Amino acid sequence: MSDEQRKVGVAVVGVGGAVSTTAIAGVELLKVGACGTDGLPFADVTSLVPYTSLVFGGWDLDGDDLAKAAHLHRVLEPNVIEASGAGLAAVAPWPAVADPEYCRNAVGANVVPISSVRGRIDHVRADIERFRTEQDLDRVVVVNLASTERWPDLTLPALQTPEAFEQAVDADDPVISPSMVYAYAAITTDSPYVNFTPSASADIPALLELALQRGVPVAGKDGKTGQTMIKTVLAPAFASRSLHVDGWYSTNILGNRDGQVLDDADSLQAKLQTKGNVLDQCLGYHVEDHQVRIDYYKPRGDEKEAWDNVDLTGFLGQKMQIKVDFLCRDSILAAPLVLELARMVDEAARRKEGGAQEQLGYFFKAPITRDGSEPVHALYRQEQVLREWLG
Amino acid sequence: MSDEQRKVGVAVVGVGGAVSTTAIAGVELLKVGACGTDGLPFADVTSLVPYTSLVFGGWDLDGDDLAKAAHLHRVLEPNVIEASGAGLAAVAPWPAVADPEYCRNAVGANVVPISSVRGRIDHVRADIERFRTEQDLDRVVVVNLASTERWPDLTLPALQTPEAFEQAVDADDPVISPSMVYAYAAITTDSPYVNFTPSASADIPALLELALQRGVPVAGKDGKTGQTMIKTVLAPAFASRSLHVDGWYSTNILGNRDGQVLDDADSLQAKLQTKGNVLDQCLGYHVEDHQVRIDYYKPRGDEKEAWDNVDLTGFLGQKMQIKVDFLCRDSILAAPLVLELARMVDEAARRKEGGAQEQLGYFFKAPITRDGSEPVHALYRQEQVLREWLG
Amino acid sequence: MSDEQRKVGVAVVGVGGAVSTTAIAGVELLKVGACGTDGLPFADVTSLVPYTSLVFGGWDLDGDDLAKAAHLHRVLEPNVIEASGAGLAAVAPWPAVADPEYCRNAVGANVVPISSVRGRIDHVRADIERFRTEQDLDRVVVVNLASTERWPDLTLPALQTPEAFEQAVDADDPVISPSMVYAYAAITTDSPYVNFTPSASADIPALLELALQRGVPVAGKDGKTGQTMIKTVLAPAFASRSLHVDGWYSTNILGNRDGQVLDDADSLQAKLQTKGNVLDQCLGYHVEDHQVRIDYYKPRGDEKEAWDNVDLTGFLGQKMQIKVDFLCRDSILAAPLVLELARMVDEAARRKEGGAQEQLGYFFKAPITRDGSEPVHALYRQEQVLREWLG
Amino acid sequence: MSDEQRKVGVAVVGVGGAVSTTAIAGVELLKVGACGTDGLPFADVTSLVPYTSLVFGGWDLDGDDLAKAAHLHRVLEPNVIEASGAGLAAVAPWPAVADPEYCRNAVGANVVPISSVRGRIDHVRADIERFRTEQDLDRVVVVNLASTERWPDLTLPALQTPEAFEQAVDADDPVISPSMVYAYAAITTDSPYVNFTPSASADIPALLELALQRGVPVAGKDGKTGQTMIKTVLAPAFASRSLHVDGWYSTNILGNRDGQVLDDADSLQAKLQTKGNVLDQCLGYHVEDHQVRIDYYKPRGDEKEAWDNVDLTGFLGQKMQIKVDFLCRDSILAAPLVLELARMVDEAARRKEGGAQEQLGYFFKAPITRDGSEPVHALYRQEQVLREWLG
Repeated sequence: MSDEQRKVGVAVVGVGGAVSTTAIAGVELLKVGACGTDGLPFADVTSLVPYTSLVFGGWDLDGDDLAKAAHLHRVLEPNVIEASGAGLAAVAPWPAVADPEYCRNAVGANVVPISSVRGRIDHVRADIERFRTEQDLDRVVVVNLASTERWPDLTLPALQTPEAFEQAVDADDPVISPSMVYAYAAITTDSPYVNFTPSASADIPALLELALQRGVPVAGKDGKTGQTMIKTVLAPAFASRSLHVDGWYSTNILGNRDGQVLDDADSLQAKLQTKGNVLDQCLGYHVEDHQVRIDYYKPRGDEKEAWDNVDLTGFLGQKMQIKVDFLCRDSILAAPLVLELARMVDEAARRKEGGAQEQLGYFFKAPITRDGSEPVHALYRQEQVLREWLG
Repeated sequence: MSDEQRKVGVAVVGVGGAVSTTAIAGVELLKVGACGTDGLPFADVTSLVPYTSLVFGGWDLDGDDLAKAAHLHRVLEPNVIEASGAGLAAVAPWPAVADPEYCRNAVGANVVPISSVRGRIDHVRADIERFRTEQDLDRVVVVNLASTERWPDLTLPALQTPEAFEQAVDADDPVISPSMVYAYAAITTDSPYVNFTPSASADIPALLELALQRGVPVAGKDGKTGQTMIKTVLAPAFASRSLHVDGWYSTNILGNRDGQVLDDADSLQAKLQTKGNVLDQCLGYHVEDHQVRIDYYKPRGDEKEAWDNVDLTGFLGQKMQIKVDFLCRDSILAAPLVLELARMVDEAARRKEGGAQEQLGYFFKAPITRDGSEPVHALYRQEQVLREWLG
Repeated sequence: MSDEQRKVGVAVVGVGGAVSTTAIAGVELLKVGACGTDGLPFADVTSLVPYTSLVFGGWDLDGDDLAKAAHLHRVLEPNVIEASGAGLAAVAPWPAVADPEYCRNAVGANVVPISSVRGRIDHVRADIERFRTEQDLDRVVVVNLASTERWPDLTLPALQTPEAFEQAVDADDPVISPSMVYAYAAITTDSPYVNFTPSASADIPALLELALQRGVPVAGKDGKTGQTMIKTVLAPAFASRSLHVDGWYSTNILGNRDGQVLDDADSLQAKLQTKGNVLDQCLGYHVEDHQVRIDYYKPRGDEKEAWDNVDLTGFLGQKMQIKVDFLCRDSILAAPLVLELARMVDEAARRKEGGAQEQLGYFFKAPITRDGSEPVHALYRQEQVLREWLG
Repeated sequence: MSDEQRKVGVAVVGVGGAVSTTAIAGVELLKVGACGTDGLPFADVTSLVPYTSLVFGGWDLDGDDLAKAAHLHRVLEPNVIEASGAGLAAVAPWPAVADPEYCRNAVGANVVPISSVRGRIDHVRADIERFRTEQDLDRVVVVNLASTERWPDLTLPALQTPEAFEQAVDADDPVISPSMVYAYAAITTDSPYVNFTPSASADIPALLELALQRGVPVAGKDGKTGQTMIKTVLAPAFASRSLHVDGWYSTNILGNRDGQVLDDADSLQAKLQTKGNVLDQCLGYHVEDHQVRIDYYKPRGDEKEAWDNVDLTGFLGQKMQIKVDFLCRDSILAAPLVLELARMVDEAARRKEGGAQEQLGYFFKAPITRDGSEPVHALYRQEQVLREWLG
């Protein structure tokens, strides 16, 4: 069967969010011919499923259709949303699995009315299967774009093996977060799973092992879009030129829902965790004074600003500073990566390459590794690995 | 003979300048054990001649000894200069070849009193040979750190072949600039030649061909230190993420002698020329609104500031901006590169690899290529080529 | 007659430009109730003629109606322009007086087909009188928003007295620039004149004297909007705290027609001239390293960016730096000032206060003074003078 | 008695700190003729006591002499400290009153070994009197430069009247913080008191009333040096031009002891409190999104960096941004203000003007007012009030 004929479903957790609606609007604009593939970094890779063969669905705590949601996020101008045709309005989010214990600031009425973990998993699995059937899909990939959950205790026995995880499911163990429910449902319906958020989700030994056993690709975690992306570009250059990083102070101001969720200390903690090791690994030494701030600042909406100050020591101990101010658009940076990831985990599945997809580290702040070792963070190295895999 | 026993002379054109005295001070500090190799990017490559085996001499329009010169440049603190011992004060610059037609703002009294081109060449050759003999050197490398000359007409027949160049020398053809005199003298004394300045110098067909014929390594041109270095780090990342560069505005303020020379429009033109193609080549398309300003601004001295604004278009035509403010130290960034280059052209000579050293493009804004084709500018790609060559 | 019943005509030189169309759109939006007076700094001064009593007309080299022009400038969103009703489209620019000798980059087809200076003056006077009659106006004020002209030789006898100027008019003396034609026509029709541009225009002894004789208010010159405004706010504070300014480097990037005109060296020179003395006067001493750059940079359009670096010396000679990056909107900053100036010269005329209006220095980079002495530049001092005058 | 013959003692709480040693070094340099009065904003006011008539002493938890302390703070270069002569080394700090309940991160061994509040007050009073006698002083002024204390409950009855405060002293009421002990001791020895810190100290009804009754001048609180100073300069200008402030995000990175103390959440809270109202009062409306961050970041030492982003709305609702990056020197900005304050409270005492010195608001982030009303914050208004008072 030719690529053009294949249909890949993308079931998004948090389908009504800013990143999701932006990504979907982009594909709809492509479908109606209202835009080109300019901002899509792997548009040149023709072996992947075409963007226009992607079909979207998903879960959201807010039941509004995606056109309504997109207008609300104000990432795209009203006329751009309208130009994308009827595609957005046609998607109505399925009820979502939520747990205030894991993410306090994410609330909504469109909730799965089931309290048992097993019941929730079965519900999500049924959503995936119904999506597959109704849309006549060759494959479903599940992409997590939901709000950041607090970080679980990763040393708990329940998260170590597929068997222990199964028992925890049946025991309604509170360690199982909503994003784990989605990941488990994806893996057990043989749907490749992408975790674009900082939540632990599939990045636990139990689920990585399960994915490997079943041959289901899993990618993650935490999309590398703005400040951290720049950090993994500049830090290797400083290392290359022996400019020692004495300190790196990063602050972010943003006013979208992502920022609002991070106003909750627990979610913020999870977020900052994935940002942490990047710098040390790029440089080859520990930077004690590496600080990262994320502040919710309403005037900006989705137009995030990331300000960095780097203190450097050069030859003969002489001091220098470099400051970077990135006036970026969170969702605009993230959306094309989400589309590429959907295409790439589909490709991995076609190649029957299951388990943690290390070659996709290019897309993530905290790339998962099969053995839990520290991944490579330098962007250009990640790109080389990925381009080689793409062939 | 072991590396430790070899002695390599470094004959610097502009030996009394800020970059030169900083580099030499660094080696002297190493010799007396007053500093380590922290800021030297290839300190780990043990196959190269040790830094402490480098011996310095050179030409300068100012006859002051290097300790005096170093104090004047105010790049290093007085106590650092003093800690470097008697080494700096022991170097008294040889009279230099100058031509106000090529560099108006560089003036001084320590001038070779010969007006014929051939006479000047022979004088410089004699300096090199005397240096070799007096210091008992295994090799001399010549490094050009002199002020930027105006750009010559590269299409003139005199610059196309070694033979035509020879005739031009004998005819006192005004196309032959001082930096060509040094380059020619270096090549014809089998001394590897490094051009760290934007001047054309050895980067003309006649001299590249001559260097190849004689098996003498030639490297250049224009050290890639601050703003352009960062540009060749960020631009490939923007390309990688399909962030289209709509415009890139760069301004530099600096108050050292380099800045003063660039106050002369002709020298500035030469400088800007070497900065030009970098961006387009890294991105793969032409950026019409790429502007580079260099302004002489006294309050800063050597503490240069490079401010960049980049206008980007991302997914679905959405606009972003990134601003970079690099509070750098011109000479501090350049000096270690000069030391590494001296070691590397020595290594190339040991390997008997003559002509244009393309693998050293990592160090330069406008890397020379054997066939005059556009070189690769992305820093990480250049580093990979270089590390491979180093083995 | 009550204020509400008075009608004041504003005849704008360059009525189709970005600042002009923005200002007029604002008044039209007020008239239809689509916006409030939020961005208008003297909305609280009820003794001035109401904004909604202003009626607009004027000259432009481009004959397009103002709705068309406003869409072209892209300062306001299409829906804002449309919300302003039929007012903009109803204004068709009158043919303008132009002279490529004075402003090379400003070109257009809507030109007064008269070559004699006297003939041009009479034509402009007739325009003003026709405007007054047709619109049943109580007063006409003329506002110059045209492109910057090159700077004339201010020492020429023709510019010293009303009589000499008259003779120069009759002799078609080339020293008389288009903006002087408009200023002269305004003064001799008893229409208060505002010069918001850096062109000399009415700021010559001959015309200031004439205005004083006839009792016509004249205000100027060069609207103080972005970088210079901030400079006259910060510099007095540095002086207040004894932070010595060692250097002040300012660069501007902008891509609107204003920027395009300043791409012409002569116009740029005039512009920079008005920016020059501001700093020294605010500080009380001369700053040798005060540099101002203006660069035409297309990606930005009207969204100008002004970047400043200030080098400071504080207590005990310790160095500090402050950098200001103003992402501003040229026309948005200027338009409300234009409206206030129109109201204020009308007020001055009501009070029968003719000649140079020194109390309006608050609005200008180079405030005119009756005796040609250096004006006060500190914004807060200017504001106090103005508020006192307003009463 | 002429000014030259008067001697004013300055007893500093925290005399060994960075600001204190910098200020004292400055006076010592003046005394030996090694510097001028360049960085001192009121050097032109000859009616104040000369800087060289100031004599220093004070309390510190660290007993090291001030030369040692100054070297440690690294605000001034070693050669500058040495040039100031024997003056610094001659000052040995007196044992200080400390209470970890009020300031956790400020620790040291040089402590007053008395636990009762009354005992501590008497001890401090005795220090002041001994200082007066031994140095033959015409007046002692007490300046608080100690680390920031946590904020007390200002509504407690003990802080409302002199009588209630007396009773609280005798009852060893824990509401009485160390800085209140110093303030009380100053007032009751008729020594003018300056509170340059954010601690409540004398800014409580009980002590302001006591100072008024006894005719002792009291000034405070929290020196306005860097970011807040700039804020009170820019905000009035935005208001003047009707540029509406939608949000103001401020972050500070600093690595001196001040920063370390503010790492403690309670002290930080007190600090942020004094920064809070400034903006709203300057603008005339409440800015909901006004955020201030202070982060302890070691690489910088005393060379603080304050980065501000301001979101503005201009005419017709158009958005703009301004960013300010102030690379300042905390102690260099503060030290001259401390010296001026010492001279000014001495002057107030000479004029017999006791109680809260409202005319000194120019120096403070949170100027005290007699009736507790919100003070004026705009720097230029404060300067006018002060200059008028100075006469």
